[in-house]
Amino acid sequence: MKVISTAKDMQELSIKLQHQGKTIGFVPTMGFLHEGHLALLKQARAENDIVVLSIFVNPTQFGPNEDFDTYPRDFERDERLAKAEAADYLFYPSVAEMYPGQASVSISVIDRVDVLCGAKRPGHFDGVATVLTKLFHLVQPNRAYFGKKDAQQVAVVHGLITDFKFPIELVAVDTVREEDGLAKSSRNVNLLDSERKEAPALYQSLQKAKQLIESGERDVEMVKTEIERTIKKNTSGTIDYVAIYSYPELKPLDKLDGQFIIAIAIQFSKARLIDNIIMEI
Amino acid sequence: MKVISTAKDMQELSIKLQHQGKTIGFVPTMGFLHEGHLALLKQARAENDIVVLSIFVNPTQFGPNEDFDTYPRDFERDERLAKAEAADYLFYPSVAEMYPGQASVSISVIDRVDVLCGAKRPGHFDGVATVLTKLFHLVQPNRAYFGKKDAQQVAVVHGLITDFKFPIELVAVDTVREEDGLAKSSRNVNLLDSERKEAPALYQSLQKAKQLIESGERDVEMVKTEIERTIKKNTSGTIDYVAIYSYPELKPLDKLDGQFIIAIAIQFSKARLIDNIIMEI
Repeated sequence: MKVISTAKDMQELSIKLQHQGKTIGFVPTMGFLHEGHLALLKQARAENDIVVLSIFVNPTQFGPNEDFDTYPRDFERDERLAKAEAADYLFYPSVAEMYPGQASVSISVIDRVDVLCGAKRPGHFDGVATVLTKLFHLVQPNRAYFGKKDAQQVAVVHGLITDFKFPIELVAVDTVREEDGLAKSSRNVNLLDSERKEAPALYQSLQKAKQLIESGERDVEMVKTEIERTIKKNTSGTIDYVAIYSYPELKPLDKLDGQFIIAIAIQFSKARLIDNIIMEI
Repeated sequence: MKVISTAKDMQELSIKLQHQGKTIGFVPTMGFLHEGHLALLKQARAENDIVVLSIFVNPTQFGPNEDFDTYPRDFERDERLAKAEAADYLFYPSVAEMYPGQASVSISVIDRVDVLCGAKRPGHFDGVATVLTKLFHLVQPNRAYFGKKDAQQVAVVHGLITDFKFPIELVAVDTVREEDGLAKSSRNVNLLDSERKEAPALYQSLQKAKQLIESGERDVEMVKTEIERTIKKNTSGTIDYVAIYSYPELKPLDKLDGQFIIAIAIQFSKARLIDNIIMEI
């Protein structure tokens, strides 16, 4: 596995690979890899000639009061893990390389963002869309891999790729979980020990909701109330939201129907955790 | 020459050509081709294996009171001219093909737009940047050709390509002029006969300014005043602006220095004409 640190080198390489007729699978990350990322790498490895992983903690997707500075970083460990998953290239640019001067253009995400986490993180998805646009042009992937854990991000990237007609297939990969059901996340390390023990209740609440719906429940408020009850009873966290929307459109539903997402966000003392399930009835 | 009308066909073709190692030269236009466009096609033909011309009157770059509906169109003539210049493909999509539904992302141009024509056409360059982003993804050119006549557009496209790291070389081609000096433009057909006779004064005023500067004049206001005098004396048009800025940054100058643009916009009864020269001292 080769580490590439400049935009120029990355782009020259990807152009060369495309000319050779190689398919490129791309896994964009902010590093501090966990098994969720490794699942993306595994799937990319299975489906493409070449696998490119990027590690870039993107400043423009963090709000002024968010955790850009404390976002966990461990490049050497990441490099080892990526190599073990047989990634071919690790693109690891500096902030100066990705944002070299005063921007003259910017991207705004104008749909699918005023709900869920996006509603509480104004500008977050603008930063995601901007850095992905740059990364897509540098890496020139045939397929780009994202985890379903951030289902709103998947919906936004779907909009970005479709609207701007990127020649890229979006591949959404199932959330990887700890044995007790907690979704893997770089932010789990910020949980207190006691909070870590409570955290499986998040996924349990979603599973309970799923059973309720499979038993015939169609009332959105009933399902949400049941999830809130489970979380309040079993955790010390504060509920940011428990939400149900159509998917991937992320529009409110009166009654459960078609494909929808049940999504939750819980604030613990030093970590905000999200989880979701997507169902179709 | 083959005419392509769907985004899907265009993208599949360009991917195939790129895999074959062909270089693609791209001339994006709004049609009603004149010799300015043909100069772009000629240069693209000389520098690339494949030449793609697009004709798309882009609604998002017209303001609510602008001339989208009356913008001149003549596809059959354009097709004939493009064929005569040995273009390989003419991409001619419908509005529905380029803007198939509610947009979920948008591009804002945030620098180089609050001066010259951009200052009077809020949103114009946002529409230009958005449609070019889509077209670039569909055509996947190695080189994209633009006329220096719209020098602000060249500056904005330079920013778009640089910022978003498109793997595309921007080629700016000299303005083509009538024998009497009037810059070629699709909008010249909207000049009254009497106005057409006056219109060469635009370029003459720029040439006078050039001589003045070559003789040692460095005062920005002096040069602008001289241009305004020439235009007022020789035309019935109304001066929209006579402006001098650094180029391509488009920042105000106290004193002539480095590379700069002298740009003018004159409103006639049914046509607004622009012209410019770029100098370096």
